Amino acid sequence: MILPSILESARHWVRQALSPGGIAVDGTCGNGHDTLFLAERAGPDGMVYGFDIQQEALSKTRERLHAHGMTERVQLFHAGHERMHELLPSELRGRIDAFMFNLGYLPKGDTRVVTRPETTLAALETATEWLTPGGIISVCLYTGHPGGREEADAVLHFASHLPPGAFQVMHQQLPNRREAPSLLVLEKRNRPRSSSRD
Amino acid sequence: MILPSILESARHWVRQALSPGGIAVDGTCGNGHDTLFLAERAGPDGMVYGFDIQQEALSKTRERLHAHGMTERVQLFHAGHERMHELLPSELRGRIDAFMFNLGYLPKGDTRVVTRPETTLAALETATEWLTPGGIISVCLYTGHPGGREEADAVLHFASHLPPGAFQVMHQQLPNRREAPSLLVLEKRNRPRSSSRD
Repeated sequence: MILPSILESARHWVRQALSPGGIAVDGTCGNGHDTLFLAERAGPDGMVYGFDIQQEALSKTRERLHAHGMTERVQLFHAGHERMHELLPSELRGRIDAFMFNLGYLPKGDTRVVTRPETTLAALETATEWLTPGGIISVCLYTGHPGGREEADAVLHFASHLPPGAFQVMHQQLPNRREAPSLLVLEKRNRPRSSSRD
Repeated sequence: MILPSILESARHWVRQALSPGGIAVDGTCGNGHDTLFLAERAGPDGMVYGFDIQQEALSKTRERLHAHGMTERVQLFHAGHERMHELLPSELRGRIDAFMFNLGYLPKGDTRVVTRPETTLAALETATEWLTPGGIISVCLYTGHPGGREEADAVLHFASHLPPGAFQVMHQQLPNRREAPSLLVLEKRNRPRSSSRD
């Protein structure tokens, strides 16, 4: 296949913003697949911070990182991503290369524990502020679970109001698949520009 | 910038389906930029067919191809793309690697002459049928001109009803830019599969 899946696509864009030695945040560790991806990409000189409200998710993530010998370059927080701004080292403000969010519930976990619009939006506010110029934020949106559509709408509303002179925003959807996830990608411009031409 | 423009993105996907020696169709020659791109990519052993209802567009396209020494590998038709199925060599049915459509009006031309939902849908029907397995159709959609929104909706309705076992469909939008074009990409699967998992 030429066209990538939504999850492959998220990694494709993040890979281009995150070089070895870079700094990344996984806003939703889940089973740790993206945390591991970020840790591999950031390399031994980079640093990754991961957040999850479920102990089960952090255990799986830690296990996965351990199996790949990558625990040292990752710091995990048992906290919701809305607390990023108080838990991340303050000297990283404006210096983070990539943020990844995979919304909804923990795959194979308790489907009643889901991300919520208010906390997701708070985390995205922090992410847009703490992102380095040229950095990327990826957000996988799911609409198949109760509250998913409302959360996706809230996130898209937020993204569609980011000033075009400061952020390039792209939304990728798979319109012939029911309840397929979609991908939102935010890129902070290197040089903010007047939005008059947008 | 990491995120591409809609036009760059269309070429990115088409490039992966069209190799030297391949066959492509430009459904809307316009000023000939995409026709030239397809001719360069198809190479001296490939073949490109171009359609436009405006003589002005074909003249500009011919001029552009001539300036790059690529007239021999391109055949232009002064006809609407809805007539593809009667004008393309019938032995190419199911063997075309890529189709490109750039809807709306001719840039710098008469803005009252625009593509229309009925003829665009007829062309897309042919394109999905004549495309080779693994091939790509790109469609740039514009909503800023009268009738643009209706045409975009009709095309998206068509694409969202393609069977997911036969076509992978992706829609890329720029949600924080008013009246920005969007990109629809259709990929024909190499092996049709049951759609039960989609």
